[in-house]
Amino acid sequence: MYVILVYDIGEKRVAKMLKHCRKYLNWIQNSVFEGEITEVKLKEMLMGARAIMNEEQDSVILFKSRNERWLDKEIIGVERSNIDNFL
Amino acid sequence: MYVILVYDIGEKRVAKMLKHCRKYLNWIQNSVFEGEITEVKLKEMLMGARAIMNEEQDSVILFKSRNERWLDKEIIGVERSNIDNFL
Repeated sequence: MYVILVYDIGEKRVAKMLKHCRKYLNWIQNSVFEGEITEVKLKEMLMGARAIMNEEQDSVILFKSRNERWLDKEIIGVERSNIDNFL
Repeated sequence: MYVILVYDIGEKRVAKMLKHCRKYLNWIQNSVFEGEITEVKLKEMLMGARAIMNEEQDSVILFKSRNERWLDKEIIGVERSNIDNFL
């Protein structure tokens, strides 16, 4: 399945969360990830995310689509993923 | 059509962009919006967004789906939209 993940995480936990999410998905902007993922891997990723986040302060939103073709993506301005390798 | 909009905007421009996007979409997290919008209103919104942003530094990503039902949304942790009225 295709997912978009966005998070809003306290500064202390954000580096850890970024590293965690990048194991499973493509980082496309500041706190936004996307990619194809299996149900099993998604569960694993969310379990890890819950362990990192403070569920009373932080927020993770996940949009799931059975098919990437159902979504069109448009980027305006800078493409952050282009500078992914420099960070 | 149903859209998800995420931005990564320089601090100086972020308040203006937030205000602009909220005219058209529902704010669901820090820099994330979603909602139903017509093609005409979307064009209007993007024209306004381009006027606010610095296209060499800032980034706006738009995911478009013809139907909201093609996407499942899952929220983990805090629901920011609940505190929307206090801001």
